[in-house]
Amino acid sequence: MKVAIISGSKSDENIIYEAKKTLEEFGIEYKVYIASAHRSPEYVKEIVQKVNAEFDCIIAIAGLSAALPGFVASYSILPVIGVPVDSEMFGLDALLSITQMPKGVPVASMGIGKKGAHNAALFVARMFAQQDPDLKQKLLDYIKKEEENIRKINEDL
Amino acid sequence: MKVAIISGSKSDENIIYEAKKTLEEFGIEYKVYIASAHRSPEYVKEIVQKVNAEFDCIIAIAGLSAALPGFVASYSILPVIGVPVDSEMFGLDALLSITQMPKGVPVASMGIGKKGAHNAALFVARMFAQQDPDLKQKLLDYIKKEEENIRKINEDL
Amino acid sequence: MKVAIISGSKSDENIIYEAKKTLEEFGIEYKVYIASAHRSPEYVKEIVQKVNAEFDCIIAIAGLSAALPGFVASYSILPVIGVPVDSEMFGLDALLSITQMPKGVPVASMGIGKKGAHNAALFVARMFAQQDPDLKQKLLDYIKKEEENIRKINEDL
Amino acid sequence: MKVAIISGSKSDENIIYEAKKTLEEFGIEYKVYIASAHRSPEYVKEIVQKVNAEFDCIIAIAGLSAALPGFVASYSILPVIGVPVDSEMFGLDALLSITQMPKGVPVASMGIGKKGAHNAALFVARMFAQQDPDLKQKLLDYIKKEEENIRKINEDL
Amino acid sequence: MKVAIISGSKSDENIIYEAKKTLEEFGIEYKVYIASAHRSPEYVKEIVQKVNAEFDCIIAIAGLSAALPGFVASYSILPVIGVPVDSEMFGLDALLSITQMPKGVPVASMGIGKKGAHNAALFVARMFAQQDPDLKQKLLDYIKKEEENIRKINEDL
Amino acid sequence: MKVAIISGSKSDENIIYEAKKTLEEFGIEYKVYIASAHRSPEYVKEIVQKVNAEFDCIIAIAGLSAALPGFVASYSILPVIGVPVDSEMFGLDALLSITQMPKGVPVASMGIGKKGAHNAALFVARMFAQQDPDLKQKLLDYIKKEEENIRKINEDL
Amino acid sequence: MKVAIISGSKSDENIIYEAKKTLEEFGIEYKVYIASAHRSPEYVKEIVQKVNAEFDCIIAIAGLSAALPGFVASYSILPVIGVPVDSEMFGLDALLSITQMPKGVPVASMGIGKKGAHNAALFVARMFAQQDPDLKQKLLDYIKKEEENIRKINEDL
Amino acid sequence: MKVAIISGSKSDENIIYEAKKTLEEFGIEYKVYIASAHRSPEYVKEIVQKVNAEFDCIIAIAGLSAALPGFVASYSILPVIGVPVDSEMFGLDALLSITQMPKGVPVASMGIGKKGAHNAALFVARMFAQQDPDLKQKLLDYIKKEEENIRKINEDL
Repeated sequence: MKVAIISGSKSDENIIYEAKKTLEEFGIEYKVYIASAHRSPEYVKEIVQKVNAEFDCIIAIAGLSAALPGFVASYSILPVIGVPVDSEMFGLDALLSITQMPKGVPVASMGIGKKGAHNAALFVARMFAQQDPDLKQKLLDYIKKEEENIRKINEDL
Repeated sequence: MKVAIISGSKSDENIIYEAKKTLEEFGIEYKVYIASAHRSPEYVKEIVQKVNAEFDCIIAIAGLSAALPGFVASYSILPVIGVPVDSEMFGLDALLSITQMPKGVPVASMGIGKKGAHNAALFVARMFAQQDPDLKQKLLDYIKKEEENIRKINEDL
Repeated sequence: MKVAIISGSKSDENIIYEAKKTLEEFGIEYKVYIASAHRSPEYVKEIVQKVNAEFDCIIAIAGLSAALPGFVASYSILPVIGVPVDSEMFGLDALLSITQMPKGVPVASMGIGKKGAHNAALFVARMFAQQDPDLKQKLLDYIKKEEENIRKINEDL
Repeated sequence: MKVAIISGSKSDENIIYEAKKTLEEFGIEYKVYIASAHRSPEYVKEIVQKVNAEFDCIIAIAGLSAALPGFVASYSILPVIGVPVDSEMFGLDALLSITQMPKGVPVASMGIGKKGAHNAALFVARMFAQQDPDLKQKLLDYIKKEEENIRKINEDL
Repeated sequence: MKVAIISGSKSDENIIYEAKKTLEEFGIEYKVYIASAHRSPEYVKEIVQKVNAEFDCIIAIAGLSAALPGFVASYSILPVIGVPVDSEMFGLDALLSITQMPKGVPVASMGIGKKGAHNAALFVARMFAQQDPDLKQKLLDYIKKEEENIRKINEDL
Repeated sequence: MKVAIISGSKSDENIIYEAKKTLEEFGIEYKVYIASAHRSPEYVKEIVQKVNAEFDCIIAIAGLSAALPGFVASYSILPVIGVPVDSEMFGLDALLSITQMPKGVPVASMGIGKKGAHNAALFVARMFAQQDPDLKQKLLDYIKKEEENIRKINEDL
Repeated sequence: MKVAIISGSKSDENIIYEAKKTLEEFGIEYKVYIASAHRSPEYVKEIVQKVNAEFDCIIAIAGLSAALPGFVASYSILPVIGVPVDSEMFGLDALLSITQMPKGVPVASMGIGKKGAHNAALFVARMFAQQDPDLKQKLLDYIKKEEENIRKINEDL
Repeated sequence: MKVAIISGSKSDENIIYEAKKTLEEFGIEYKVYIASAHRSPEYVKEIVQKVNAEFDCIIAIAGLSAALPGFVASYSILPVIGVPVDSEMFGLDALLSITQMPKGVPVASMGIGKKGAHNAALFVARMFAQQDPDLKQKLLDYIKKEEENIRKINEDL
């Protein structure tokens, strides 16, 4: 199972990186595309058609009037996970553009920025884990380790 | 010179009506299309390609994550005028989705709802008037009448 | 494959209904639970533990300080889809509570209210379709029908 | 065909620059005026009257309670394109002041800041292109190049 | 001493009424004008020039992109008191348009709607009271009565 | 005629400075007090009682839950001009706290921060000018100079 | 142990009622006062001084520029619990006015409106329960019953 | 009497510090825990159960979708005081997540960030002072000193 990351702009590299790093930690295959829904719609369509045939879900990262996740969801029946980028207006514009999709075209939004990209990767891991016992174990380990880290912090207080 | 009105949903009929009524008052030819950027992207593309060949500008009306005006602007080099609809969140979602376009794809946003649709038609009249002395006169008359109406209100106070 | 719907309040019945109706249209098995993260946290935990063993994903519906989706995601490694309810402040409180999750606990948010619940069901269908060719076909049909409906509206204009 | 840029403050130079640079790229003649609707209303009126006789459209740039675009639109029947400046409140004050015009006085708003100024110039190019086949070609080339750039980024990934 | 009330629209009659009623209670002379900064700028200017010669201060009532108070303040050196009207967006658009004036052109904003119009009249009474001992006494009586009313409510609880 | 400046915190010195500098330019006598409505209410009351006897109006500067202007207005029948300070939340908290006064206690709000303090001083000058022909002339000169400065900027473009 | 409820306006009766009903359910003595921080500050002070001597905590209910809770907290060292009322702007003005208190004057804010008033009473019960084993038991029963109610709803689904 | 401080993240150290320092000034015993409602819910539960047996109230500090205060309040009948942290969106997300609790689970919110943490400690002091005459005196001294400091500032102006 593989995930395609499509990001609206090369300037979101540090956001993309969060998703990549986390996917790698979980051993999930991915491929990154940079393509703007507004400045290269046909290219996005090409990418989505390729992705539809070869991938199992899509992470779409975009800022401002963040049309990319919705655009991608229109040309695919894969699950699409949107990550709003804080390019301006502390990300409120992107958050509303990604979440307020009309009835019929689902996009699943994560939180704004880096933490959102990390969580998008985790969400993909949760989806794929339903078919993959190893991944399931990794997720359980991740959750356990998160809690252990917090317990350790308290021992050191 | 002709304008295409593309609206994202049949439920925006009263908003569309404002644009139509005003265009008729100014004797501007128009045609209405209902098409959703999210639920019928290919159909929007077909419409836009037809519109590109036969029309001179586009009014795009949409609510929520209002991708339609930006989507239309991506497939056209006609001037695109967006009208945000107050479907939810008092229209703030649609207003930000329409105005916060990335560098490279211009959309010109009017105000939210009915007044925005009326003004979209007036803006089209102003664009077309540069090639049409009759329309220019109608606009001057409209402005004059607006002011006269206000003066009359005061005489009656 | 089955989905658990957990809603924070019985008063969100019309939102729950949207999710149920759509899941039924796609022939997806589901079960509804009403449980508040704040007023019955242990009961939510019990539900989540049962759900973890028997279901494949969770739709969590909540308003105000909508802690339910995040709470559920903390006790599960299933994909959790949140639906913010517009109980107050036009739903902005619920939308931010659901989307702004910290790094490590992914919740996938849909839009506010009924359309969000409908789309949550569609998103589940997209996830399950990766293992279910019939469901895949139903989704393709749904998209096709959506577009046909819009084309028909234009013929009747 | 020529465009007048009227900006509310000398401090918006970097915003004005974006519009100028883009107009020059498209070979569109322009002239820049600095004039405040609030601090020099009569001077704005003088400018607008001159502009009405010699120019074909107006770009009006303003921040805070951004009255300039609406003021200019009141004294002209030229198409007026507003650019909200982020002087304070992340530009929300200027965006609402420019978009929420009353019925009867159309102002077409772009997005906030530099990207908005660039897009204002592109919008002017689209308007003028209806009478100018060369400009039409330049716009088609611009769109093509934007897409090519994005395709190239992906080859280099 | 006399106050001019200028309101942007006849539809704000109930807001205007609050200001009128309160001015009458304090025996302050006033005159009402209806004039839109955007749809009748020259008429507003005429009114302001007359007002400048005959009145001592101005209450300006407006909604949406509420340019009227700032416009009036540009053509006058009288104190201008703005009252934002809740035509849309719960009045936030008008509040920001009225308060966020640039350096150099003061407008004094009251709260949104009816209470704002009542308080605008009280503010005028406070300004005029500096030259009018009777008015001073009326203001002291008003404040005393307000407090007495509240004390009475508690006796009846 | 004299104005009292009451500021809620010594940390607002740069805001206070804008008011002082402008009052000095117009030759208006003033006195500055630092006193918090929340941390020293009785002291504010003492100040206001002294101010009531000796001054003609009050400028009240405050941030956050900016109760000072309203508090001062409750103990005085002088005109009170509020200046919201951007301590947090880009000043929205202070702006709403100052403008949204209940019916019966008028506070006149300026814009947020430095420009607001400058305009507060100008507003005081406008109030006092009704009794002071010299001040009237200074205000006319100020407006004229503002316009001339802007005209000059254009000559230099 | 007794709680004083001070509400800024008689029009908030339905909000006050929620607090009263809940306090009665828990057998907590209370007394209601209606008094406006802005329109009757001295009377509020009198009330607070009486309350300081006879009561153990204060619930302060207010809308708009909700100065009452902070005002009360300035004249008391009792714990003050604020309840923002949704008079306008969906309660955002009151919420920010109540929460954004400066360093040194604590006010504890509940949520907006009826639920906030109910929770204010519960919060008082929690405070008093530290000295009152019966009240402690009632709170444990309340929580248990809340959960049981939710469990029952599910049995009936 | 003792207070437990539970903070959602080690990165909020400077916020925690404000609460600690103030509690120490008032001689109030406290213990700090770091635990995330989302990443370590069971550990938070363990902490809360220990706290329930040994402490008298809880300060809960959290940012983003700040579920911690509500989560803690669900497992305790101690008074819970929430402090929203400005991790993103100028703290609005955390403020709404903490204040907009459903009916039945009270959380008392302070203002955003450092000042909120300081005030949380003061609020605890006010609660404990009802059983502790020394603490009462310290609070009266604190208030007196705050006022004296402000009076001194004015002498030095």
